[in-house]
Amino acid sequence: MNVLLASTSTLYGGNYLEYLKDEIKTLFQGIDEILFIPFARPGGISHEEYTAKVAVFFEELNIKVRSLHEFEEMPEAIQNAKAYFTGGGNTFLLVKTLLEKNLMHFLKENIETGKPYLGTSAGSNIGGINMKTTNDMPIVYPPGFECMELVPFNINPHYLDPDPLLKHNGETRETRIQEFLTQNDIIVVGLREGNWIRRIGDKITVEGSQMTRIFEKGKEPYEIEAGSQIG
Amino acid sequence: MNVLLASTSTLYGGNYLEYLKDEIKTLFQGIDEILFIPFARPGGISHEEYTAKVAVFFEELNIKVRSLHEFEEMPEAIQNAKAYFTGGGNTFLLVKTLLEKNLMHFLKENIETGKPYLGTSAGSNIGGINMKTTNDMPIVYPPGFECMELVPFNINPHYLDPDPLLKHNGETRETRIQEFLTQNDIIVVGLREGNWIRRIGDKITVEGSQMTRIFEKGKEPYEIEAGSQIG
Repeated sequence: MNVLLASTSTLYGGNYLEYLKDEIKTLFQGIDEILFIPFARPGGISHEEYTAKVAVFFEELNIKVRSLHEFEEMPEAIQNAKAYFTGGGNTFLLVKTLLEKNLMHFLKENIETGKPYLGTSAGSNIGGINMKTTNDMPIVYPPGFECMELVPFNINPHYLDPDPLLKHNGETRETRIQEFLTQNDIIVVGLREGNWIRRIGDKITVEGSQMTRIFEKGKEPYEIEAGSQIG
Repeated sequence: MNVLLASTSTLYGGNYLEYLKDEIKTLFQGIDEILFIPFARPGGISHEEYTAKVAVFFEELNIKVRSLHEFEEMPEAIQNAKAYFTGGGNTFLLVKTLLEKNLMHFLKENIETGKPYLGTSAGSNIGGINMKTTNDMPIVYPPGFECMELVPFNINPHYLDPDPLLKHNGETRETRIQEFLTQNDIIVVGLREGNWIRRIGDKITVEGSQMTRIFEKGKEPYEIEAGSQIG
């Protein structure tokens, strides 16, 4: 497999996908067109506008972008595509759409043949075993929480360390992930912004500018460096 | 109906339920025993320990606490109870448990006859139309998101204003609620910590030390003062 799952599309003060440019060039080497999956986007901008924003970035790499929402026959569009990019937004909406349209397993099967896949945020969540470690609000009810399992663990994108100054009684991200581990025996990778997961063949590493925080049932959370293998 | 739905059980630096003591006295006037619903609690403390913590507070009010998890016949326990308190934790786990044990509608029907109900955090979420505006992580998959509709709107407990200094690309609470409104035409009450909703008969008001932020489809969010009627 050839997979890149990023915590975020955009770093604070940066442009869309800019910090990932070199990695994306390598991921999509030899590819002149990708299929964009815009379904996480709940509003603010339309699927057309979202696709246009993505196309501007990929134009610099001489890669054409088609969007899945433009196709009448979506399973066929997935089958015919050379590579994929799923953008961020709301994971519940993304998973509901992919499951209801019966597209999730088509996408998984194609990626498993070696076609490159890029995910950011919600698009990275669906690369995990299930979406039970998303940060998103459950604005719609999906028919299930199962995802593509492109990696043998779950992802928590936009992982955020607790703010010791916050006088607020809501749970911290770490508490939420610990709650997940009371109900599930699945490793969770807390991906800080600036980090990503890279799978090439069977080798899976964490990459980026920050340490990555790993949560396992019955263990203290621990940190691993960029370049470390996982899974 | 006689309902109190609070944003949080505990204020920063305060003790459990302390800031709500006078309100709770009024809510449970003439009641000497309540039924506690502990199912939101995913771990950290057991249902027994959670119940013990609740009992310590209610002892000061001369109110005995029985917990629903102690009963073999849970629907009967709900039917026989004089009043209810659902504590916080994880809303997905709470709703999954109540729906799978077929208890949600029993609880609703009993509260609708006038039996007092207290909810905090996840326990307040289930007083809304559905749980689609919870902040919790979807650590388990409930058979549905529908709740008791004790008030004709949804609640976002622990409502938190955006932090202008945060250099993080995750969505703000306000953005998440706006995303909810793209998919649902339901009013959302953003309950800051220190605030609660009080329903006495058909009159519903927001109460507490903070302004309350209201979100409606197609409108700018707006703030209302303590004592304002809503719904």
